[in-house]
Amino acid sequence: MTDYFAGISPLSYEGPDSDNPLAYRHYNPEEMLGDKTLAEHLRFAVAWWHSFAWPGGDPFGGQTFQRPWFGDTMDLARLKADAAFELFAILGQPYFCFHDADIRPDGTDFAENTRNLEEIVDYIGQKMADGGPKLLWGTANLFSHRRYMSGAATNPDPDVFAFSAATVKTCMDATQKLGGENYVLWGGREGYETLLNTDLVREREQAGRFLSMVVDYKHKIGFKGAILVEPKPQEPSKHQYDYDTATVYSLLKEYGLENEVQMNLEQGHAILAGHSFEHELAMAASLGIFGSIDMNRNDYQSGWDTDQFPNNVPEVALAYYEILKAGGFTTGGTNFDAKLRRQSLDPADLVAAHAGAMDVCARGLKAAHAMLEDGKLEEARSARYAGWTEPANAAMLNSDLNSITARVLADGVNPQPVSGRQEVLENLVNRYV
Amino acid sequence: MTDYFAGISPLSYEGPDSDNPLAYRHYNPEEMLGDKTLAEHLRFAVAWWHSFAWPGGDPFGGQTFQRPWFGDTMDLARLKADAAFELFAILGQPYFCFHDADIRPDGTDFAENTRNLEEIVDYIGQKMADGGPKLLWGTANLFSHRRYMSGAATNPDPDVFAFSAATVKTCMDATQKLGGENYVLWGGREGYETLLNTDLVREREQAGRFLSMVVDYKHKIGFKGAILVEPKPQEPSKHQYDYDTATVYSLLKEYGLENEVQMNLEQGHAILAGHSFEHELAMAASLGIFGSIDMNRNDYQSGWDTDQFPNNVPEVALAYYEILKAGGFTTGGTNFDAKLRRQSLDPADLVAAHAGAMDVCARGLKAAHAMLEDGKLEEARSARYAGWTEPANAAMLNSDLNSITARVLADGVNPQPVSGRQEVLENLVNRYV
Amino acid sequence: MTDYFAGISPLSYEGPDSDNPLAYRHYNPEEMLGDKTLAEHLRFAVAWWHSFAWPGGDPFGGQTFQRPWFGDTMDLARLKADAAFELFAILGQPYFCFHDADIRPDGTDFAENTRNLEEIVDYIGQKMADGGPKLLWGTANLFSHRRYMSGAATNPDPDVFAFSAATVKTCMDATQKLGGENYVLWGGREGYETLLNTDLVREREQAGRFLSMVVDYKHKIGFKGAILVEPKPQEPSKHQYDYDTATVYSLLKEYGLENEVQMNLEQGHAILAGHSFEHELAMAASLGIFGSIDMNRNDYQSGWDTDQFPNNVPEVALAYYEILKAGGFTTGGTNFDAKLRRQSLDPADLVAAHAGAMDVCARGLKAAHAMLEDGKLEEARSARYAGWTEPANAAMLNSDLNSITARVLADGVNPQPVSGRQEVLENLVNRYV
Amino acid sequence: MTDYFAGISPLSYEGPDSDNPLAYRHYNPEEMLGDKTLAEHLRFAVAWWHSFAWPGGDPFGGQTFQRPWFGDTMDLARLKADAAFELFAILGQPYFCFHDADIRPDGTDFAENTRNLEEIVDYIGQKMADGGPKLLWGTANLFSHRRYMSGAATNPDPDVFAFSAATVKTCMDATQKLGGENYVLWGGREGYETLLNTDLVREREQAGRFLSMVVDYKHKIGFKGAILVEPKPQEPSKHQYDYDTATVYSLLKEYGLENEVQMNLEQGHAILAGHSFEHELAMAASLGIFGSIDMNRNDYQSGWDTDQFPNNVPEVALAYYEILKAGGFTTGGTNFDAKLRRQSLDPADLVAAHAGAMDVCARGLKAAHAMLEDGKLEEARSARYAGWTEPANAAMLNSDLNSITARVLADGVNPQPVSGRQEVLENLVNRYV
Repeated sequence: MTDYFAGISPLSYEGPDSDNPLAYRHYNPEEMLGDKTLAEHLRFAVAWWHSFAWPGGDPFGGQTFQRPWFGDTMDLARLKADAAFELFAILGQPYFCFHDADIRPDGTDFAENTRNLEEIVDYIGQKMADGGPKLLWGTANLFSHRRYMSGAATNPDPDVFAFSAATVKTCMDATQKLGGENYVLWGGREGYETLLNTDLVREREQAGRFLSMVVDYKHKIGFKGAILVEPKPQEPSKHQYDYDTATVYSLLKEYGLENEVQMNLEQGHAILAGHSFEHELAMAASLGIFGSIDMNRNDYQSGWDTDQFPNNVPEVALAYYEILKAGGFTTGGTNFDAKLRRQSLDPADLVAAHAGAMDVCARGLKAAHAMLEDGKLEEARSARYAGWTEPANAAMLNSDLNSITARVLADGVNPQPVSGRQEVLENLVNRYV
Repeated sequence: MTDYFAGISPLSYEGPDSDNPLAYRHYNPEEMLGDKTLAEHLRFAVAWWHSFAWPGGDPFGGQTFQRPWFGDTMDLARLKADAAFELFAILGQPYFCFHDADIRPDGTDFAENTRNLEEIVDYIGQKMADGGPKLLWGTANLFSHRRYMSGAATNPDPDVFAFSAATVKTCMDATQKLGGENYVLWGGREGYETLLNTDLVREREQAGRFLSMVVDYKHKIGFKGAILVEPKPQEPSKHQYDYDTATVYSLLKEYGLENEVQMNLEQGHAILAGHSFEHELAMAASLGIFGSIDMNRNDYQSGWDTDQFPNNVPEVALAYYEILKAGGFTTGGTNFDAKLRRQSLDPADLVAAHAGAMDVCARGLKAAHAMLEDGKLEEARSARYAGWTEPANAAMLNSDLNSITARVLADGVNPQPVSGRQEVLENLVNRYV
Repeated sequence: MTDYFAGISPLSYEGPDSDNPLAYRHYNPEEMLGDKTLAEHLRFAVAWWHSFAWPGGDPFGGQTFQRPWFGDTMDLARLKADAAFELFAILGQPYFCFHDADIRPDGTDFAENTRNLEEIVDYIGQKMADGGPKLLWGTANLFSHRRYMSGAATNPDPDVFAFSAATVKTCMDATQKLGGENYVLWGGREGYETLLNTDLVREREQAGRFLSMVVDYKHKIGFKGAILVEPKPQEPSKHQYDYDTATVYSLLKEYGLENEVQMNLEQGHAILAGHSFEHELAMAASLGIFGSIDMNRNDYQSGWDTDQFPNNVPEVALAYYEILKAGGFTTGGTNFDAKLRRQSLDPADLVAAHAGAMDVCARGLKAAHAMLEDGKLEEARSARYAGWTEPANAAMLNSDLNSITARVLADGVNPQPVSGRQEVLENLVNRYV
Repeated sequence: MTDYFAGISPLSYEGPDSDNPLAYRHYNPEEMLGDKTLAEHLRFAVAWWHSFAWPGGDPFGGQTFQRPWFGDTMDLARLKADAAFELFAILGQPYFCFHDADIRPDGTDFAENTRNLEEIVDYIGQKMADGGPKLLWGTANLFSHRRYMSGAATNPDPDVFAFSAATVKTCMDATQKLGGENYVLWGGREGYETLLNTDLVREREQAGRFLSMVVDYKHKIGFKGAILVEPKPQEPSKHQYDYDTATVYSLLKEYGLENEVQMNLEQGHAILAGHSFEHELAMAASLGIFGSIDMNRNDYQSGWDTDQFPNNVPEVALAYYEILKAGGFTTGGTNFDAKLRRQSLDPADLVAAHAGAMDVCARGLKAAHAMLEDGKLEEARSARYAGWTEPANAAMLNSDLNSITARVLADGVNPQPVSGRQEVLENLVNRYV
């Protein structure tokens, strides 16, 4: 036992009137909502990187956090894992997520990286066996080390492609071993800094082939979880190839992977791509590739990824509305890809931030569920398209311009606009949030 | 003859030292560059809408321009065409472009729209027969009239779909009749204002089927030109389905149209989508769907589409560099989708704006051509990827994670980063611009 | 009586459980909150321009709304006023606001403009005398007519300066006559399109002198209300001189007007300037120049002013929190500078949009009031600065670098950071919203 | 002598046709332009932080650069200084700039910091005495160390205020000792992360008093250089108090410092504030507070400060045009606050990046000078405002609304808009760049 969280008891659900900053006010994991509990709906995960590995630096300042486990040894990696499971015990959330580089010290080469990873995976596996959360997903950090500065799968240097492929293999093995329910790829360096030195055709092919090999390996080892790609338009790169859902879909279609790969969508990444979070969720659902979410929030006035904990219930409600419409999570879940502000130094900040975020999500989910149960919004949506249910109209989609033109002339088709009623629908949403 | 441009003579090429504001200083249409003249490379087109139909309004103010041809009668439409061909005679550019709504008055129904269009097309056809530019492309305005407020092809009302399809048919016919070299679709209302009243699955299907019918009709009538889609992320809609090149490509792949449809790319639309213009050009080229450009510039500090005439030679040079790398224009060209500032009231402003823009493009093209001829940039790019020419490396793209991991372990692959030399390459570009 | 709103009854307060889309669910005007009613706290105003004069156009499409009063005659202006007071009767809000150009038809010259204005002001005055709302503020539209295309007070043409000054005089007279409680200046054209043709020194002086004359005239005519400036960074101009609160303050200080002029702040304008709404409110309050608000919301993914009705309670609560901390409104109020989406065609949309917005504001205000009453947030803020209450620390502000350095050395001052607790405070706010 | 730049000779001016990547093609320091040399006009400075202290990290990746002088000892600090002066000898630029934290290792307390600083200042002073560049400005790094995480002058903790004041004193002393020509303050942490824990009134007062003490100390020690404030709107903080020139001016006016403090303006910071660089330059000049520049460029598609080397000659020309119009630099100069891309690993990259940037600036300056000498742009500007030279018009600025209204009525003032000719002026600029 570390004493890092000394004095902080496991959080209980105390109800909306509680003024205990270290309690749940809205997230009662056992509460039924429809045919699932809140815990089953939300499938919360804590992110190892932000919560345990991030030192509090930003581009203009260094480390602000002083965690006793910071450092690059196996002992410290175990201490970090101990602290992590202590936070998990306090929060009681059902899942966690990690990159290899979050949980193991950096080695000098691939072999040492792999040994370190295997050793810590065993350690974490034992802790999981003693209770505690399950693994929502694992992933490989192919962006922090300087070897990846020009890309991982899309690097001009084939050795980096090889190193990356081997690293993903070990991370998929680790995820499989720990019973992970998904495997994620985020390509922060799969992009370019300048077109002047970039071969887009070649790099796109490298990306497509790499992803195909990941899918092949999944099948080879019998991994039952989903392969998830997490889009982001830029940062750290000037341009990243997995810009947004639609962009990733174009790659999946090209490589025939649209039934093999799903999306892990993040609010902050959606914002950076010029989309609302609900847009990305709805788009993925409409393409049949929705998988999981990285819940957080970006500051709307900052042009970079701020990865803050979510705190706006109406926005979160719209996100869960799209998720519920898509059938809810299957293998996916709600991972908090959110970090403390670098001025939030204390262990209690880490606990409170997660508790507040889980409450926000619980409120948002309940509102979304009520809105969907009530059905008024979906009624209004259906009514708007009702004309397409007439066979003669539906048939137009398989017709041709000449026939349609003849019809327009014959029937004197002269459409009159009808109100889109946006404000009425927004008011309707406000009944639930 | 109108007297709108009275006193302005046809522009001549006078060379870089000229201080005549109404002359070409860099655009000498007959000048050879490689195996084509500048005119053949650049294929300039004047846009009917901005140059002749736009009244100078903005969201906070009304009409500033007072053109004698403003109004909604056939007589005024002919007067507008007369003035247009007078500007064309002054500029001497080889092409023009139009929407139906730019050239004909609005009728009360589809039949009257069609009659008006056919009549003015005949009139314009006669003027073309008398000399003057050719038609680079035609298109249908499916966004200004209130019937399109909720979309054209993607409207919830099937009657609007029908009206749109019929209108596109007439515009394709008109384009064919006038010898147009391409047909363009821009979907400013093909998107949504709020997800709350939108069915993405259905609207995407409507968009895909509509585009398929356009391609079918092209083949049916034997239209030899290209079908071009012009992407834009937003404005006027909150979200537009043809967000950017990658997004359009995902639709093309889904409907099997990737060999039938190309892109008409605009600088301002690229900027709004978070891309540089050269990014969109390079992306389209890498996907094999580059077609044509709407040359203009957006103000980098404004969050809307400012459609200004281009004036930054180094930026324009990078755009033409991508175009030349892609083999240059075939059916496409350089259309100025650019409008005068609403304070630029005078006929001379309209002439000077085009002349300056054509000079900027000519300078940019010459720099791009020299840079490509010189080859140093492409040499540097190739050298960066040279490792992939080794068979053992190239084979990795068709390998699997296990084999690659074995190789990494066996060979002790431990890649060392090499400089990307971005500043050196930027300096190299600056030798030419 | 017009029959425009036929069938829509005056709205009642029906409580949160009502599912009547045309009722108040949270805004009970008579409800006491502290020592004021909700109506007294919020001081709602309907904006004549968006609600009655805006045709539904955008940069890519024309009029969508078909109001029977559209047109440019005195009869239609009266019909518009009749409809306006019918909406006011339905909503029951205590105030309205107008520009001269919203309420009178455009004349051919200043004299006719003035006659038209005086005539319709008499007509509106009679309607006000018969009951109905009061005037929160009047203002002059110095941006829509083409004469203002290059600025009003800051125009290079002194005649436009003169025309603008005279127009403001008539609008101040009208505001005074109708018992207006404030007079507003928004300078959408007081800025530039290009620095190349702009003399910043001269234009700044014109702006400063113009504002001084407005203040002088207020005193001359004994107008008791406040003079308010409404900042906006850009749109329609590339740059506007009243960029944001801090920028306006620099002008006020230069012309000695900081005790004479206050701010009318708008959410959408704050967003365009890169600020949150609460930032602008807090900044104005900190400088002692907070006056009134234009409540609306901008789409965070659009780069232009969308002027939507507010619908996010947590955001609105933070805005009212700053307003209540600043002492609440005195002459100011909550004006809805918000317009229907152009697809929202129906009279019921106009009513519902206002009702929903008033409910959102009422919820936000109640949350803000509770938060302020509770005091925990202010306690936490005070505690953070508690060190400055020690006299030796406070004295440093009037000390010098040498003395402070001596103290640092003598006392070995070596400050240790303490947590800023942002997430804890955000969670605290979420207890109230 | 280190051997870091082994094999790279001092750069010579070789003229535009040179294809030597390590030579000047446009920057001939001795070339006369008007009555000054290029070196005297441009006053180039190399920034110690980006060139020698930055490790190549970004928010998603660690160090990529491997400089032999990295580390936190006095020996390494001296090695860094040796390398710096070797780069200076290669570039031959006349100035350099530094923060204390760039040149000395971090101590455990203020006393050790001061000792380290004094020791390295002596070392650098000796190197300067042996030839090499002069000091353009010094500054204190009050943002990187965790003690400053919540601000320096505006920290809630008075001890941090004290530590900051003492640190600035030592940096001003160091700057004075090394003959620095200016002293700069940039307040990256003088702002807030959340309004919820921030007291704007108090923090503004702390900022104003701190700046006043800096000015007092300047006079006390007889420092002849200028005190410069460098504005930036955000990053690292959510909001920074020195948002832009106008905002800083409001603080200067409030504390009576507008004749004591000038602006150090940076392209990238202007962009982040929603301005063009030339806007900030023109604004500062119009307020009489222009001082110096941090020349760099921001990527227009990235929402954070990219600090790239400038490479767009037309943009740089517009910047120098404003500088020349303001009379050129006096104590200020052109500091490259620009860093290599993190993939640009080699010593030659560092040399080439500076050489290319200096060439770009030289080309821009020459174009600006020619444009100003030619006078056509200023003629056009003056002509636009010519109406104000008539006494009756000029008198309006000191008139009143009643008198002006009488004049409008008496004279039937009815202004007609005239063209702003933006495109013509843009074409004119393009003759020079």
